[in-house]
Amino acid sequence: MNRTVRWKGVQTLKLWGGRFKTSTDVLAEGFTSSISFDWRLYRQDIAGSIAHAKMLAKCGIITQEEGRQLVEGLKTIQKEIENGTFPFRQEYEDIHMNIEARLTELLGEVGGKLHTARSRNDQVALDMHLFMKEQVAEVRQLVLELMETLVSRAEEHLETIFPGYTHLQRAQPVLFSQYLMAYFFMFKRDYERFSDCQKRTDMMPLGAAALAGTPHPIDREYVAAQLGFGQLYENSMDAVSDRDFLLEFLAAASIMMMHLSRLAEELIIWSSQEFGLVEMDDSFSTGSSIMPQKKNPDVAELIRGKTGRVFGSLVGLLTVMKALPLAYHTDMQEDKERTFDAIDTLKNCLKVASGMLRSLRLQEDAIAASFKRDYSVATDVADYLVRKGRPFRRAHEVVGKLVLYCLEEGKGLEDLSLEEFQKIDSAIQEDIYQVITPEASVRARRSTGGTAPGSVRKQIELGKEFIGREKKSF
Amino acid sequence: MNRTVRWKGVQTLKLWGGRFKTSTDVLAEGFTSSISFDWRLYRQDIAGSIAHAKMLAKCGIITQEEGRQLVEGLKTIQKEIENGTFPFRQEYEDIHMNIEARLTELLGEVGGKLHTARSRNDQVALDMHLFMKEQVAEVRQLVLELMETLVSRAEEHLETIFPGYTHLQRAQPVLFSQYLMAYFFMFKRDYERFSDCQKRTDMMPLGAAALAGTPHPIDREYVAAQLGFGQLYENSMDAVSDRDFLLEFLAAASIMMMHLSRLAEELIIWSSQEFGLVEMDDSFSTGSSIMPQKKNPDVAELIRGKTGRVFGSLVGLLTVMKALPLAYHTDMQEDKERTFDAIDTLKNCLKVASGMLRSLRLQEDAIAASFKRDYSVATDVADYLVRKGRPFRRAHEVVGKLVLYCLEEGKGLEDLSLEEFQKIDSAIQEDIYQVITPEASVRARRSTGGTAPGSVRKQIELGKEFIGREKKSF
Amino acid sequence: MNRTVRWKGVQTLKLWGGRFKTSTDVLAEGFTSSISFDWRLYRQDIAGSIAHAKMLAKCGIITQEEGRQLVEGLKTIQKEIENGTFPFRQEYEDIHMNIEARLTELLGEVGGKLHTARSRNDQVALDMHLFMKEQVAEVRQLVLELMETLVSRAEEHLETIFPGYTHLQRAQPVLFSQYLMAYFFMFKRDYERFSDCQKRTDMMPLGAAALAGTPHPIDREYVAAQLGFGQLYENSMDAVSDRDFLLEFLAAASIMMMHLSRLAEELIIWSSQEFGLVEMDDSFSTGSSIMPQKKNPDVAELIRGKTGRVFGSLVGLLTVMKALPLAYHTDMQEDKERTFDAIDTLKNCLKVASGMLRSLRLQEDAIAASFKRDYSVATDVADYLVRKGRPFRRAHEVVGKLVLYCLEEGKGLEDLSLEEFQKIDSAIQEDIYQVITPEASVRARRSTGGTAPGSVRKQIELGKEFIGREKKSF
Amino acid sequence: MNRTVRWKGVQTLKLWGGRFKTSTDVLAEGFTSSISFDWRLYRQDIAGSIAHAKMLAKCGIITQEEGRQLVEGLKTIQKEIENGTFPFRQEYEDIHMNIEARLTELLGEVGGKLHTARSRNDQVALDMHLFMKEQVAEVRQLVLELMETLVSRAEEHLETIFPGYTHLQRAQPVLFSQYLMAYFFMFKRDYERFSDCQKRTDMMPLGAAALAGTPHPIDREYVAAQLGFGQLYENSMDAVSDRDFLLEFLAAASIMMMHLSRLAEELIIWSSQEFGLVEMDDSFSTGSSIMPQKKNPDVAELIRGKTGRVFGSLVGLLTVMKALPLAYHTDMQEDKERTFDAIDTLKNCLKVASGMLRSLRLQEDAIAASFKRDYSVATDVADYLVRKGRPFRRAHEVVGKLVLYCLEEGKGLEDLSLEEFQKIDSAIQEDIYQVITPEASVRARRSTGGTAPGSVRKQIELGKEFIGREKKSF
Repeated sequence: MNRTVRWKGVQTLKLWGGRFKTSTDVLAEGFTSSISFDWRLYRQDIAGSIAHAKMLAKCGIITQEEGRQLVEGLKTIQKEIENGTFPFRQEYEDIHMNIEARLTELLGEVGGKLHTARSRNDQVALDMHLFMKEQVAEVRQLVLELMETLVSRAEEHLETIFPGYTHLQRAQPVLFSQYLMAYFFMFKRDYERFSDCQKRTDMMPLGAAALAGTPHPIDREYVAAQLGFGQLYENSMDAVSDRDFLLEFLAAASIMMMHLSRLAEELIIWSSQEFGLVEMDDSFSTGSSIMPQKKNPDVAELIRGKTGRVFGSLVGLLTVMKALPLAYHTDMQEDKERTFDAIDTLKNCLKVASGMLRSLRLQEDAIAASFKRDYSVATDVADYLVRKGRPFRRAHEVVGKLVLYCLEEGKGLEDLSLEEFQKIDSAIQEDIYQVITPEASVRARRSTGGTAPGSVRKQIELGKEFIGREKKSF
Repeated sequence: MNRTVRWKGVQTLKLWGGRFKTSTDVLAEGFTSSISFDWRLYRQDIAGSIAHAKMLAKCGIITQEEGRQLVEGLKTIQKEIENGTFPFRQEYEDIHMNIEARLTELLGEVGGKLHTARSRNDQVALDMHLFMKEQVAEVRQLVLELMETLVSRAEEHLETIFPGYTHLQRAQPVLFSQYLMAYFFMFKRDYERFSDCQKRTDMMPLGAAALAGTPHPIDREYVAAQLGFGQLYENSMDAVSDRDFLLEFLAAASIMMMHLSRLAEELIIWSSQEFGLVEMDDSFSTGSSIMPQKKNPDVAELIRGKTGRVFGSLVGLLTVMKALPLAYHTDMQEDKERTFDAIDTLKNCLKVASGMLRSLRLQEDAIAASFKRDYSVATDVADYLVRKGRPFRRAHEVVGKLVLYCLEEGKGLEDLSLEEFQKIDSAIQEDIYQVITPEASVRARRSTGGTAPGSVRKQIELGKEFIGREKKSF
Repeated sequence: MNRTVRWKGVQTLKLWGGRFKTSTDVLAEGFTSSISFDWRLYRQDIAGSIAHAKMLAKCGIITQEEGRQLVEGLKTIQKEIENGTFPFRQEYEDIHMNIEARLTELLGEVGGKLHTARSRNDQVALDMHLFMKEQVAEVRQLVLELMETLVSRAEEHLETIFPGYTHLQRAQPVLFSQYLMAYFFMFKRDYERFSDCQKRTDMMPLGAAALAGTPHPIDREYVAAQLGFGQLYENSMDAVSDRDFLLEFLAAASIMMMHLSRLAEELIIWSSQEFGLVEMDDSFSTGSSIMPQKKNPDVAELIRGKTGRVFGSLVGLLTVMKALPLAYHTDMQEDKERTFDAIDTLKNCLKVASGMLRSLRLQEDAIAASFKRDYSVATDVADYLVRKGRPFRRAHEVVGKLVLYCLEEGKGLEDLSLEEFQKIDSAIQEDIYQVITPEASVRARRSTGGTAPGSVRKQIELGKEFIGREKKSF
Repeated sequence: MNRTVRWKGVQTLKLWGGRFKTSTDVLAEGFTSSISFDWRLYRQDIAGSIAHAKMLAKCGIITQEEGRQLVEGLKTIQKEIENGTFPFRQEYEDIHMNIEARLTELLGEVGGKLHTARSRNDQVALDMHLFMKEQVAEVRQLVLELMETLVSRAEEHLETIFPGYTHLQRAQPVLFSQYLMAYFFMFKRDYERFSDCQKRTDMMPLGAAALAGTPHPIDREYVAAQLGFGQLYENSMDAVSDRDFLLEFLAAASIMMMHLSRLAEELIIWSSQEFGLVEMDDSFSTGSSIMPQKKNPDVAELIRGKTGRVFGSLVGLLTVMKALPLAYHTDMQEDKERTFDAIDTLKNCLKVASGMLRSLRLQEDAIAASFKRDYSVATDVADYLVRKGRPFRRAHEVVGKLVLYCLEEGKGLEDLSLEEFQKIDSAIQEDIYQVITPEASVRARRSTGGTAPGSVRKQIELGKEFIGREKKSF
């Protein structure tokens, strides 16, 4: 969107001024004006007005010639806005009034016919629906791109063994691609949530007028078809008072930001000198103004930090809507800035997250070395004992003793002699050594969804199919 | 759920105690124990364990006889819990360990085989999925009942004209049933959100073990079929670290509570002495301890107030999950209490809201009287002028002048003589008087979704079809 | 603050670029850059740098001449920014680097000496402290002005009886000034919270450098004195990692917005046609685009709605700071935009709330008429009976029966004959009629803090004293 | 607090039942009843009622004998509750009505005199104020204990050099006690916030009655003195509608939990095998059910996780109070459960945090070894160059090149020969080697608040003084 908005001049007539005896307080005017942020809806507002004007003409509410003039005038205005020549005026409060006032300037009295059978209440609802339809679609595409990045990096790392953690303690070895595919499936659910949200965004409110519908013989289905909407709002009061399509988006965005914050946290921890598992590309890090050796994972930190503003936007709009009677209150004007910000934030985070993951390097040697004495194959010993007939709980206790012994002796499990093993449990045989390597551990976890290479390959296939199918749907 | 949990006795052995040299700090033990709230998952935990035991036997990981014993033991435990004879022990930390410890008490060493190829990480995930599947279904049924109440009251009030408000100012007359159907369509979207949430709840995590899957030859599809799950988690790390199905529920519940808070607010305002539009039944009001004439809409106030706790639960879990690395952290134990509370709160609010609406009485005489001099047919005059050829903006200005004149003269629009009308706009004719009654205003709004009786009847038909279709799906 | 920021030119050298081999990704650069919002700290940044430069010279870390040059250069830059001629560059990331780069452009190598014994970590902390000191003081002044408005309107309305509500039901008559003084005392607590917050804002972080202090012989007390700070941060790691002064401000602002939302809600309800108790001035209302008779309390609605964005900002920053290790992370850059927005929002709301209250008109005739048959003196009857010796609970029950009788007969309490009274309780005498007028009810409530005129006058005196004392403290 | 509440029997008469013709819906009764959680206020309720009864007698509103009977009856009830013999009844809604009903059972009609000149509105406000006064004081003591633990551990570690981080990258060496004292000063601000909150909690609402004060000649100052309150609410409507003392507490608790979450996060990261800097005591860790080698920092994780529920409680109550008209609404009943939970949570977290810190062990050998090649003295080289006359920015660049050279050669700064140093900057001399040890780095940072041992010792002295002074104030 090109930010070519310009503020100029002052005109004093308010469009709704008939009933009022004194003019609006200057302070209050600045306070209630929304043009500084809702100008961003100009394309949607004009598209909606064009569809409305055509419908008015088609239904005989205005003449064909009037309809033609209105459409031409609106197109001229769109050009003016995009050229930066449009005379925005704060005292016209919002984008709708700015456009209508200009239309009347351009066309004379016929401009005053555009608002027939319409109110700002349904008009702004329409603009937001059109805007969100576009934006949610863009978000879905960006999520799909991020998922594609994950699949492609996962494919690349089908051989790379990586430490798996619980409680930030080394737990079991996993494939690095298993890690990546965990995020893939999280993001897939996010994608599906945005898709579900899109269904409830794809609803056409125009024709509700202020709250009760209109006595003019309008054709809402025609307007919906012109604008590509799948459904109509079936109740006029609901049409103008509903903002839950925005709340649903903000909730889905918050959940996705939460997911991104988890990924960011892991990358920050893994790129610490102590973990040393990955290296962020210089292009996604920044330096310190005083400590030149530092390579700070700023981009990941900022993704993590920006989670806060999206959560805050959700809380903000929930608060706005709490206990608001039907059908419209000016409180609802507060739906825009934070939603716009959440959209921009999420889209930017998705873009940089893709770039960051694409350029991420693994410290493969350090990773391989890190499995020495990390006891992350302990569970494999327990599972081995189960296969030798020990009940799991007993096996678990045996391994506890083995690890305790190792810690006291300063050894890894892989360093124990068979005698040492057998002193603690006689069921352990020579074949134990084939079980207690990271490679063997990973290969063994062939259960559906497990980390064995075959299982991960299957996940990748599922992932590719899903992406391919969804891409076609756009 | 029958709260028959009893706390008894103390046993000191921790199930995971092998590695530990000193016992857990008493304070820390109480702090980390979750049995005081997760006992509520006992049915799910036992059902999950039975399916797991059967699968272990079917796959030859334990013998058929062992499988049979485990299943019997688990059934015995369920009976003990429901009889109130089960010896809950806080030092066993959670419901899983309490049940397993008791199983071993009952069965001896075979009890220790149940946990083969499983971890508490996937076990608790399974329990929560089973629990939520049930709960979301119950919530959906309650939403449907509330929707049914609305439809039935709307049908009853297809003739009742009611003031429609924007900005809490009288705007235009509407049918009371139009108001009710606005809420119907809001709740329909809530219902659909819960349905979408249910899809992402209906996923089987067991078999992920701690985080990486298991080397035992398990059959996750079999477990899923036993428990009635539609899908498997495709990635083991995702299976144990995912809590977004809870967040999605909390978000949908928050949005629905927001809707309920709007309804509650309206009922509170409408039942004030000043508005006097509705009367709450005594059974949904309470009295004042000092002002005996008061009839306080407590139930509606409490619904409105309880919105806060559900919003808070959403924020709480978002906060918990923010920046949490994979795969499992004890922070995630905080997912339960608030989710349980949000479910209970929402279900109770849905039940009382249905009861409150069913017993709500309209103050029909007062409503009818209230349209005198309320100017809520002003838009009808503007629309009339448009039909007489005035551009809408001009018509709007004319009506502004008319209302201002009325206010100065202390008259309603319906009190003006034709001369008075024509002094302000000569286009106004005798037929104006047919336009400016509340009845005419409502009847005229025949646009799709508008408040004309035919339009509302169509909404009611859509509503009934939807309810009928969904009821069959349970 | 004059928004004269201009964006020009592009320079590619990063100030921290020494260690980096590839340049920052263009996308990532836009993502991490904060200059688009932190330019607003330019005055604070320059004031802090001037104090720092003087200190470096005073302590002999740089020469007196170098100090003088740096101070001059910084003053030149301030002029450039305020003239709109300053060459802001996004690739310099933030206001600190933009200023330092320009300083080096102006002064040559000596510019590079300014950052001695300093880091961006303590520099940005200083800027925010300076900024907040100013802003919290401004907020406190605006709160005081609002409190003054309340006191002055309360004085004006010491005779005006107004309905008092609980549960939005008429409860007891009160003075309108009692209502106003209730808000006065709420805002007084808000004022005190901001004062307490100011203590914790008035702390000087500079000298902490990156996190550990500096080996240069600096004089932090001198810098603090130059900048008017009352205290130093006593620990360098705390100095750079603390953001709780912002959180405390956001919490106090949220509580105050909650208070303002309550006031706004009351004004909205009171100015409905049904309540008809007050009339907003036209200058604080707006009209409807389709319903010309409407006078919408937009300003009050928007105050109420803006509560959401302030709550959201608080949640946002709490989320950002949750679980962030010491000492500095880029996440903390997210502290600015939302805090700036919360400050601007609160200040604007305070200003318009003052204006709105100053111009608010009471519908005195309608108010007086509204006490007919509203039963709001019922408690006075109960209290009368207590004085006649009835236990309160019994008196309460008697009044309940009286009101029920009235409702059935369509009468007010004031309409009952003495016989009717005595039929229900024989203790009632002729003097009952002196008790059951709104005037008598109000006059009787002489308890400290009660609504009797003398009590309210005392509150007003307390209020004036407080305002007078605080005003002197600025 | 001993949870000896018992539920028994059912009685059908509602205390406020006079006006009502049909009894409360069973569902609604359970919904609005608060006795299941407000029983916890029984001590405060009885203490408040005793003070009220004494005042009524003192002021001649009841007789001395009646006063004596009421006081005795109330004491009996307290014993019954604490013995577990009190007949709690849900249909009496709340603790106030349960106690009053029982009082009337015990004393006959005189029981009905207790509620003279009082309402549940001011009564519940009083109970919450009394409760919070106690609780905030307890919280303050626990914070002080935690601060004491920090000071004592800091004193113990005045020699221990520890890595200091920014962006989770090694930045500069610090004393471990500098880390601890950073938390000390954060908690000191928390302590001060709780102290400020206590001022606004220490206000006596009783006497406000329902909302307007009372016509009875009460003595609020006497009641306040009896109960140890410092101030009175000066306005009766404010007294019953104010909940900001709870919000302020929840905000301070949220900020403190945020601080605790940061500490918890650091301990979790530091006790990972990769960082290996600290070891949690076994008594503050738990084991894994499947991975016996794991030692999970559960207690720290749970502290971090519980941050969510406190944030949620704050958001919840802010939401409840948003846009609530004066003076009392049942929504406000939602103030209790979450506040109780936040208090319990915070107190438990403070206790376990103290225990956890007291028993924390440092891995001193590993820490010492970790400084090899970690470049955390790079800033010392830059500061060295500044002392040799290089402008800081140039020095910074030189060090950047040195580190890059080291990374390419696989060396630490301490491994470079003088020639290697001088090849990059000829100003470097033999004395560089005295600068680039962790010990020298720490010792050099003697600026106020810096990490040099003398500076930290000064912080410890300040800390001890503060604790000593505050302890005396209890």
